[in-house]
Amino acid sequence: MAGGVGSRFWPYSRNHRPKQFLDFFGTGRSLLQQTVDRFRPIVPIENVLIVTNVMYRDVILEQIPDLRREQILCEPARRNTAPCIAYAVSHISARTSEANIVVAASDHLIMQEDEFRRVISTGLDFVENHDVLLTLGMKPTRPETGYGYIQKEKQWTEDGRELSSIYTVKTFTEKPDLELAKVFVDSGEFLWNSGIFLWNLQSIRKAFRTYQPEISEPFRRGENMMGTADEDTWIQEVFPTLPSISVDYGIMEKADNVYVMEADFGWSDLGTWGSLYSLSPKDAEGNVSLKSDALFYHSHGNVVTLEPGKLAVIQGLDGYIVAEADGVLLICKQQDEQSIRQMVTDAEVKFGGKYN
Amino acid sequence: MAGGVGSRFWPYSRNHRPKQFLDFFGTGRSLLQQTVDRFRPIVPIENVLIVTNVMYRDVILEQIPDLRREQILCEPARRNTAPCIAYAVSHISARTSEANIVVAASDHLIMQEDEFRRVISTGLDFVENHDVLLTLGMKPTRPETGYGYIQKEKQWTEDGRELSSIYTVKTFTEKPDLELAKVFVDSGEFLWNSGIFLWNLQSIRKAFRTYQPEISEPFRRGENMMGTADEDTWIQEVFPTLPSISVDYGIMEKADNVYVMEADFGWSDLGTWGSLYSLSPKDAEGNVSLKSDALFYHSHGNVVTLEPGKLAVIQGLDGYIVAEADGVLLICKQQDEQSIRQMVTDAEVKFGGKYN
Repeated sequence: MAGGVGSRFWPYSRNHRPKQFLDFFGTGRSLLQQTVDRFRPIVPIENVLIVTNVMYRDVILEQIPDLRREQILCEPARRNTAPCIAYAVSHISARTSEANIVVAASDHLIMQEDEFRRVISTGLDFVENHDVLLTLGMKPTRPETGYGYIQKEKQWTEDGRELSSIYTVKTFTEKPDLELAKVFVDSGEFLWNSGIFLWNLQSIRKAFRTYQPEISEPFRRGENMMGTADEDTWIQEVFPTLPSISVDYGIMEKADNVYVMEADFGWSDLGTWGSLYSLSPKDAEGNVSLKSDALFYHSHGNVVTLEPGKLAVIQGLDGYIVAEADGVLLICKQQDEQSIRQMVTDAEVKFGGKYN
Repeated sequence: MAGGVGSRFWPYSRNHRPKQFLDFFGTGRSLLQQTVDRFRPIVPIENVLIVTNVMYRDVILEQIPDLRREQILCEPARRNTAPCIAYAVSHISARTSEANIVVAASDHLIMQEDEFRRVISTGLDFVENHDVLLTLGMKPTRPETGYGYIQKEKQWTEDGRELSSIYTVKTFTEKPDLELAKVFVDSGEFLWNSGIFLWNLQSIRKAFRTYQPEISEPFRRGENMMGTADEDTWIQEVFPTLPSISVDYGIMEKADNVYVMEADFGWSDLGTWGSLYSLSPKDAEGNVSLKSDALFYHSHGNVVTLEPGKLAVIQGLDGYIVAEADGVLLICKQQDEQSIRQMVTDAEVKFGGKYN
């Protein structure tokens, strides 16, 4: 999934260049490229589908040059994750009746890629032989209020044997407040909802038919268009009529065959400057400079991103974001980063589209 | 005088581009250009001499295209204002035995240019007919600790008539602390030392001979070189041997014919970010954005300078300098701006000459 437009990393991310296409850490690879690279050893590139907005097709082809154009599925409108996944599922169904599927966002950060592949492979083996909807739950390392939580319940048993990392799900919980998040983490029962799903083709098709017929029915009617010259026209027409709903809410919270696989591979959804800060290597005073040179004086806990080759000299700042990109410099307290959306709107109103 | 190299406005000013060559307020004219323009209605351009370092000759010719190359006198070394002025005086002497001279820095800001020209014209008329060394003292508007002060004494009387704006000088005082500066301003007796001097050619020659023979004697010996093809070679040899001393300390504080002319034309020596801030138009929250677009949130009393066409979005900052130029971004509390020199040194040590 690579359709996000997010303004949360503004001015670093923009509408024309959302975060999945950015190289946050100056490694030379964007988050999307890192995501694709991460799967290469276990998923042949020709089996990768990327669902996105048509305006990002060219940047994706540029960033992943060995991808064929037909592997990029373009949503004509933003309809959250359920229609997005249904589109990909329908596309896969046109080619095969048997497949094991991983659904992943293109803008997550994963530190331990070997462990990630071990977990994904284990999960794929599992869903191949079971009619289940499996989601990955990450062992929480802090009481993060920016993530959803999954409460695990009973361990999966098979042939009288417990499969140590797979559990039934007791509850899904939206982003909690700090107090509740602390309780969650202390309990040992809660995992972060990673938004990474594994299932086989028939299980997810059945789940859509059962819980989201409003989405599955149009795709069933258009089945014979998939992979043909008419696919684009048909999608243009039908997709915008679909309900906007997340797969978590629309399916996972409703289905009775949902399981969570506990995992721990240094995951972050990089949803906020704060999460970016917490993941980045820091100097002795807790300052992060992502790409550029930096000198800090009487300053603590800042995250700075300027273009490589620049120098930041920061004096007397604690806990700020300092981000510059494409002619916009943002200086904002990390604790107030939720106001960045409003700032983007204000800049739009005051200066027209000049700084979008 | 246009030889200053100052790092106080770093990163906005650099060694290769000190503040006199910068357009601080985005008006399209540098401080040097504004200084020359200010004199044009009362001083023919061919009577302007600019004393500077040879490395700035080209930028001066570029900025003042109607200046001839010979009007730029190049100091081969920095020797403070007394040798600088002696050089210009010697150059003028080679052309004429009668002249009235104004000495002015090229990096001051003057808001009321008509009043400035009225004062200068009055002063020039006065020094034409009197053997005096006249300095301009600015009516202080605040207890500024960054300036020297001149204590005025008795009004000049002539033919039994008091000349309202000219006084004898009781004391010259270096930069005072804040408490003393307050006493100075409250007393009504103290004026800011502007460093703008007026005198006739013979009076200043006599003063150099009397108080700075170490400077005047070499220039007397080289008199016949001035304005010839040998001038440069001779200056290269002699100038570095001269003592480094200010005209204030070397002459004005010693001579017995020193007078101060009280004036008020919106003067600032723009010596610090703080003085730049205090002179600039502010929004309702006391924020200054010199050239670029800006949005401020919960922010007060900041001065921001980015390149025109950029946008600064500043949240939760009070009393900071935010300055970006040539790949360096500085964020520093205004009250700590004296540490900028150290930061420049640190950047030099840590990153070589990359950000000088």
